[in-house]
Amino acid sequence: MALTLAEKIIQEHIVPEACPNIDFRKGNPIPRGEDIALKIDQTLTQDATGTMAYLQFETIGIPRVKTELSVSYIDHNTLQTDFKNMDDHRYLQSVAAKYGLYFSRPGNGICHQVHLECFGKPGKTLLGSDSHTPTGGGIGMIAIGAGGLDVAVAMGGGAFHTPMPKIFGVKLTGKLRKGVGAKDIILEVLRRETVKGGTGAIYEYFGDGAASLTVPQRATITNMGAELGATCSIFPSDEKTKKFLESMGRGGDWTRQEADEGAQYDKLIEIDLGSLHALAACPHNPDVIDSVKNLAGKKVTQVVIGSCTNSSLDDLESVAAIVKGKHIAPGVEAGIAPGSRTTLLMASKAGILGDLIEAGFRILESACGPCIGQGFAPNSEGVTLRTFNRNFKGRSGTADANVYLVSPETAAAAAVTGVFTEAETMEYDDPAYATGFRVSMLDGEDARLSSADVLKAAQDRGMVIAPLDADKAKDVEILRGPNIKPCPPCREYKPSLSLPVRLKAADNVSTDDIMPAGAKVLPLRSNIPEISKFTLTRLDETFYKRSEEASFADCCVVGGENYGQGSSREHAALGPMYLGVRAVITKSFARIHKANLINYGIIPMTFKNPADYDKIAQGDTLELVDIDSSLKNGTPFRVVINGKTEIECVNDIAARSASILMAGGLAAYTRKGGN
Amino acid sequence: MALTLAEKIIQEHIVPEACPNIDFRKGNPIPRGEDIALKIDQTLTQDATGTMAYLQFETIGIPRVKTELSVSYIDHNTLQTDFKNMDDHRYLQSVAAKYGLYFSRPGNGICHQVHLECFGKPGKTLLGSDSHTPTGGGIGMIAIGAGGLDVAVAMGGGAFHTPMPKIFGVKLTGKLRKGVGAKDIILEVLRRETVKGGTGAIYEYFGDGAASLTVPQRATITNMGAELGATCSIFPSDEKTKKFLESMGRGGDWTRQEADEGAQYDKLIEIDLGSLHALAACPHNPDVIDSVKNLAGKKVTQVVIGSCTNSSLDDLESVAAIVKGKHIAPGVEAGIAPGSRTTLLMASKAGILGDLIEAGFRILESACGPCIGQGFAPNSEGVTLRTFNRNFKGRSGTADANVYLVSPETAAAAAVTGVFTEAETMEYDDPAYATGFRVSMLDGEDARLSSADVLKAAQDRGMVIAPLDADKAKDVEILRGPNIKPCPPCREYKPSLSLPVRLKAADNVSTDDIMPAGAKVLPLRSNIPEISKFTLTRLDETFYKRSEEASFADCCVVGGENYGQGSSREHAALGPMYLGVRAVITKSFARIHKANLINYGIIPMTFKNPADYDKIAQGDTLELVDIDSSLKNGTPFRVVINGKTEIECVNDIAARSASILMAGGLAAYTRKGGN
Repeated sequence: MALTLAEKIIQEHIVPEACPNIDFRKGNPIPRGEDIALKIDQTLTQDATGTMAYLQFETIGIPRVKTELSVSYIDHNTLQTDFKNMDDHRYLQSVAAKYGLYFSRPGNGICHQVHLECFGKPGKTLLGSDSHTPTGGGIGMIAIGAGGLDVAVAMGGGAFHTPMPKIFGVKLTGKLRKGVGAKDIILEVLRRETVKGGTGAIYEYFGDGAASLTVPQRATITNMGAELGATCSIFPSDEKTKKFLESMGRGGDWTRQEADEGAQYDKLIEIDLGSLHALAACPHNPDVIDSVKNLAGKKVTQVVIGSCTNSSLDDLESVAAIVKGKHIAPGVEAGIAPGSRTTLLMASKAGILGDLIEAGFRILESACGPCIGQGFAPNSEGVTLRTFNRNFKGRSGTADANVYLVSPETAAAAAVTGVFTEAETMEYDDPAYATGFRVSMLDGEDARLSSADVLKAAQDRGMVIAPLDADKAKDVEILRGPNIKPCPPCREYKPSLSLPVRLKAADNVSTDDIMPAGAKVLPLRSNIPEISKFTLTRLDETFYKRSEEASFADCCVVGGENYGQGSSREHAALGPMYLGVRAVITKSFARIHKANLINYGIIPMTFKNPADYDKIAQGDTLELVDIDSSLKNGTPFRVVINGKTEIECVNDIAARSASILMAGGLAAYTRKGGN
Repeated sequence: MALTLAEKIIQEHIVPEACPNIDFRKGNPIPRGEDIALKIDQTLTQDATGTMAYLQFETIGIPRVKTELSVSYIDHNTLQTDFKNMDDHRYLQSVAAKYGLYFSRPGNGICHQVHLECFGKPGKTLLGSDSHTPTGGGIGMIAIGAGGLDVAVAMGGGAFHTPMPKIFGVKLTGKLRKGVGAKDIILEVLRRETVKGGTGAIYEYFGDGAASLTVPQRATITNMGAELGATCSIFPSDEKTKKFLESMGRGGDWTRQEADEGAQYDKLIEIDLGSLHALAACPHNPDVIDSVKNLAGKKVTQVVIGSCTNSSLDDLESVAAIVKGKHIAPGVEAGIAPGSRTTLLMASKAGILGDLIEAGFRILESACGPCIGQGFAPNSEGVTLRTFNRNFKGRSGTADANVYLVSPETAAAAAVTGVFTEAETMEYDDPAYATGFRVSMLDGEDARLSSADVLKAAQDRGMVIAPLDADKAKDVEILRGPNIKPCPPCREYKPSLSLPVRLKAADNVSTDDIMPAGAKVLPLRSNIPEISKFTLTRLDETFYKRSEEASFADCCVVGGENYGQGSSREHAALGPMYLGVRAVITKSFARIHKANLINYGIIPMTFKNPADYDKIAQGDTLELVDIDSSLKNGTPFRVVINGKTEIECVNDIAARSASILMAGGLAAYTRKGGN
């Protein structure tokens, strides 16, 4: 049977002995929803999730990572307003040296951008402790975001378990108009599919429109597939991919990756690129889509270009083309954070950086920065246009700011006009359209690439430290700053629980709501007792205090649809776990957060009848009756409200996950020999 | 009589009617210590002191600034972790538009560097609400740091009052060895003179060694003259100055400025530049000087190049020359914050920026940044080499870090070797030494300046907004964010006071100790009630709490030598004033802080007998007997300790300052018609 590209890569990486329910006869499609175990070729971590992942990895007791390649990146905590950030950097550097990882030094850029440039390989699997790991799908990888503990297990050689996703096909035809960006494609998908449309699915892009896109454009789309709730997104690896890798000095890493002819998708979406105009995700969710045409003329106070979504050389080139010879409007503050040092260096050599500085852009560090509330917060009630991937309320650092997610083209147009403006209505000369078709510098189709300087910059790996020989690694001392505390153990499993509802939340609670990022909280990521004080504060400032008053006794949280969307941070499970949360009952979950809850021994349940949500009030007591039997037999969960009304909750927890819960979390499960 | 350059400029700017005690017959030297009133040609403010200065200026009620030129800069608060910083930026921009100031937009760089490049004029007076305003002395200005209220008065056309300084001559001979920087000259002066050696003095540099230095080198020296406690420092304006200004497109602003032949100095210091080797100011004061040779081999964890002291194109060029083809050592994190957007743009066009990125430097924003604890804090117990001007304990953001102040050459050498290293022991090719003598790109003597691109960059003023026409200015609306609160009024004057000693402090208390900067506190600069909670916390965490418990009743503070050194921040007077401090009694004061205390109605006294310091304990009550008579008659202050022991304190408060104190501070004094 003809298989999709995603299925082909998954089949090549599946660990049959860990998937007893799957029929592996050749060409047989894997049943959707079935628990699969994937061999992981590559892992990545960033510093905000990495410290906890490596603290866990250290407890596993393996002398060296067992993957083909593992990389530890620093990109989140680079503001460094006190000792904690740099202490974390040094811890991570020493861990990388000791356990055989590549180390991407602070300043080298955002993990996803750098991974694409330096390490990703078509056809491989990548597991990363960051929700935007699917960026790697831009070069034909199955690249999945997960909790740090899952990544630690993968580094130790363990398989990654996940329900087999549905495969949604996205057929792209035609080509983008000048002034319309790849960002507008993914915003169009978000408009159609919403932030929960991709739950339990992979988006696979194909068609002549897909073939027309450069690798950085593809990566923008796969990156922001995370906002659909998708497991990951993927593009074929083709000639354009080959040229991109060659430009980066990695032609040898290329393989062709494509779906079988006639492959069938679980759903098909079609988009004519030529019909797209600029879009914007409006406050405060990535699927609140409007056209820039509708917003045209609205005043803008700030513009920021960067983040793992749109900070490639292509993006900077698009911006430079629009702003060249113009100037940032007087009422606007504008910043650019190039995605990587390589990008910065290439932009510098190609003269693009000079154009941006001349126009009046502030050049920010190559890091996540403003996208995670690390600087460049907008003014009170400000209107800020950002090329980022998330616009959750407050994430910018300014609670009442209005954040719009747009393409670099739209951001650049607004920066110089001071108002929402469709770039396609402006006159400008974009050299990347010289042939009537967008080409990327790094596709090798742009004359400027002939500059030896730019090519040399593309292949500069000066800020990556390669793994030490095993011999030398033995002598490495792990550097632990005073803020780096061991991960606290999970609470012991109990076969039945009586739990007060400490919080009842609405729909679309994000992991930012559960555990905020930002300049104040992020530096505490290595210290669970401290960071747990911020648990759920965005929704209820009293949550920690009430937990403390209850002596951190067992409790539960009730939520609506799409609970735990957004970032992969396992601190959104660790914080609640530390404060006593034993179960979370919702209408539906985001994938990574659900997995993180299980990993930390918290039972995720969904209402069989969503209307039951209304039967529960904060403060009620829920009796979880005979959990043991539900977990062992896969039968529905039984929940009794205030000793009276019994309701049923869906038990879609796979056998292995049930074992993890009964073992008291993944770390304990692994220590007890589970795999 | 032959006059020094400083005296000549002062005589040209003195307001005779405001100086009744001075004999103005031509050529007559002004008696040292006498209160003088100076006409101020130019003013500058930065954002951290500027908001309060303009809040005060608004209350004066003048429709337009009366100086030749006033500039409002944004350089301190550029991290922007919440709404406050950008709200402040917008307030300042709207104030500049309304009142006829130039506005240097965020991202345009550090006020002193930009002022040198774009606005400073030889022979003029400049008053700035930043202690490093004396940087302007590098092009032959009398450039003085003062409190924001003093600057507000100057913008309103009022004279600046200060005791006539002594003039210390510094004769420089010979020329610097390659690998030794201008920073080493000022560190040598600090070694000899200490941080209080310059109190009440101006340092005037001359000699063939002075003539050999480039303008940026001179500016490094005058900048850090602030650390001597000096009123200001000054170099002649000569051919090198002319070429520098021509390069910046400002040849017309040049005039020759030099001392009369045979001018006599109150003290003469001689330094043979050729005999200097690299020096370092060791933790935790700028005058704890050791040679880099003595420190050679000591491990370094961090290197930061930047700040108003050493962030010019010359500095970046020196660094690039040393690191070119090498790489930041694996154990070191290294950052560079170019001093201005112009510098960044020139460095980009000249290829220097590319060299720095290639070597592995993180490029930070053109702003004060790490020098004021705004990011790039070192690791716990880290050893950080910084080209900055201050190394007070904790100022870096990491309480237990060891901060060494060094030249860019020493910093660069340490960055690539990982240990303290004398740059002169390294082999490297510095194009600025092509002629056997250091030349600056901007002296017009470097062949690379022939690059039209670099020259164009030098003259780019794209991020400066010129003053609006008075007509248009009328309609400007001042933008006030929710954190911008009016300056609270001073406490009313009382003719006698009974004051508990709420704190007894030791020597060399800095304004950082009195009111910390850093990422947490700086954003509160526009909100005295909020920021006052951090008053004196570095010395005593309970100070605010104890003040609150005392219902903010009147009290006093006792200190040792050189109280109030460092930054010019008037918040170090405003905070204590708000909490009830009515008098500060010390062994000696730093100039600007003493003036700020008077401006906010706090009486500064010094012990006649320094041993009396030991007679007072924290918690004692000091009776200030008949202050009224002391202030009116200039007689010594009488202080009775615990109703028993009477001691005498020096009353060196000039007549106008006494009137200010009796009026209840400078704002009240000005409103009552004082000038």
